Amino acid sequence: MPEAASAAATRATIGDSEFDRDTALTLREPGVYDIDLSAGWTIISAVNGGYLLAVLGRALAHALPHADPFTISAHYLTASAPGPAVVRTDIVRTGRTLSTGQASLFQYDEQGREVERIRVLASYGDLDSLPDDIRTTAEPPAIPPLEQCFGPADSPAPVPGSSAITDRLMLKLDPSTLGWALGAPSGNGEMRAWFGLADGRDADPFSLLLAVDALPPTAFEIGLSGWVPTVELTVHVRCRPAPGPLRVSITTRNLAGGFLEEDAEVWDGADRLVAQSRQLARVRLG
Amino acid sequence: MPEAASAAATRATIGDSEFDRDTALTLREPGVYDIDLSAGWTIISAVNGGYLLAVLGRALAHALPHADPFTISAHYLTASAPGPAVVRTDIVRTGRTLSTGQASLFQYDEQGREVERIRVLASYGDLDSLPDDIRTTAEPPAIPPLEQCFGPADSPAPVPGSSAITDRLMLKLDPSTLGWALGAPSGNGEMRAWFGLADGRDADPFSLLLAVDALPPTAFEIGLSGWVPTVELTVHVRCRPAPGPLRVSITTRNLAGGFLEEDAEVWDGADRLVAQSRQLARVRLG
Repeated sequence: MPEAASAAATRATIGDSEFDRDTALTLREPGVYDIDLSAGWTIISAVNGGYLLAVLGRALAHALPHADPFTISAHYLTASAPGPAVVRTDIVRTGRTLSTGQASLFQYDEQGREVERIRVLASYGDLDSLPDDIRTTAEPPAIPPLEQCFGPADSPAPVPGSSAITDRLMLKLDPSTLGWALGAPSGNGEMRAWFGLADGRDADPFSLLLAVDALPPTAFEIGLSGWVPTVELTVHVRCRPAPGPLRVSITTRNLAGGFLEEDAEVWDGADRLVAQSRQLARVRLG
Repeated sequence: MPEAASAAATRATIGDSEFDRDTALTLREPGVYDIDLSAGWTIISAVNGGYLLAVLGRALAHALPHADPFTISAHYLTASAPGPAVVRTDIVRTGRTLSTGQASLFQYDEQGREVERIRVLASYGDLDSLPDDIRTTAEPPAIPPLEQCFGPADSPAPVPGSSAITDRLMLKLDPSTLGWALGAPSGNGEMRAWFGLADGRDADPFSLLLAVDALPPTAFEIGLSGWVPTVELTVHVRCRPAPGPLRVSITTRNLAGGFLEEDAEVWDGADRLVAQSRQLARVRLG
């Protein structure tokens, strides 16, 4: 099958993809890392919060004795822009099975002073050391086969909110959560999609940090438009994902007082719940 | 009504209750606070994680220009014991509507050196300034009336796991999530209860931080016993609670690899979803 062989040859791998290059950090001194935030992961002009979390996650994986983020909590302070940034890490505690660290991402103002963009606290471990027990009652999301879902490339006109990041993602939305794009939001705070990286790189714990914040806001299906900036986002990585596309399901149950929560679940091709996340975001009521 | 008047006279109020006294901090120097952790909030010999979060929450409320925790993320490092502790806070960013801070709770080892117990990141605001919009699809938990629920005092024998904290709480568990106490766990990762403070003090944002971590572990109803230590706990306070008892519903959907999540919702008497939380905890499989 020459065609399949050719596709396999051009498929990016973990460690050698656009996502890996754009989240790679340069060690400046122990615990301090430089990075040039890529314009490729922007929505309109803002750098995607999941991409930024992956950058911080990789810095902590280097700084801590454990490599896998088990739980990472990020508070978003100011909006990041493409360009130079520095990540400063701090080891809070190292243990046998879990280590905890802190990291902050800074950019520079006109005077060259550091401005903090995001601060995170995270506990890391070794996903491969976990026992195989599973007593999960959660069910994978009901989402049609990938071929029956739709992405920006399937649209005759640009989808509202299309941005540089859409070129880097394989994002196919469940038609039942796509009403907003057709001017007919369902009113339900739900968003579901097949998710992958456009260059075919398989998922790993760091791309899971991107996956939970890469779908259109659930607020769109509730009938709101405009920016939904994240205040806080916590991700639990529960299992190393199997190769192949992921299913991401996001739910909002409580929109009140100008804030909403987004609860995300990420499922892999082996029907394992590989990540759970919750974020608190602001909404602009229109 | 002399009886009612007498009950009202002995009922504790916000600011003047055992919970307030046991979470009160003494300012040592700007941003640094001393406290003697009370033995009254222990489960077996460990200090309850929700009580500790309330202590840290009050320290940040003093240190930051905003008084109400909107989202607070705690990573639990080492087990706390009753006795002296110090809370060190750091202002991360102050804004018009939200301020972000960090706080750590330390105790002392035999040599008098500080050992970090918990580190938190939190964003604070003013709950009273939020607009009244509510577009919530979440429903209050199905829980029987308070008179049909059961607490430790209703048991002829001590309930497994009874501890000092049970004397300070008004905790009445939904009989359908009490199977574990009778040796017949349901197998569902659910725990529901009416919650209040035993001295009648009404709820406020700080007691909500306690409420989300005060029920027996959902793991008991899944058929596990033993300690379920919290690794990370994030709470979103969404609304100032109305007076009267709260309903707390906790759900676990994914027990895998020796970890589980506990998702809590707290509802007030006005049927408002006043807090949401998620924690990642370790389980000992037995």
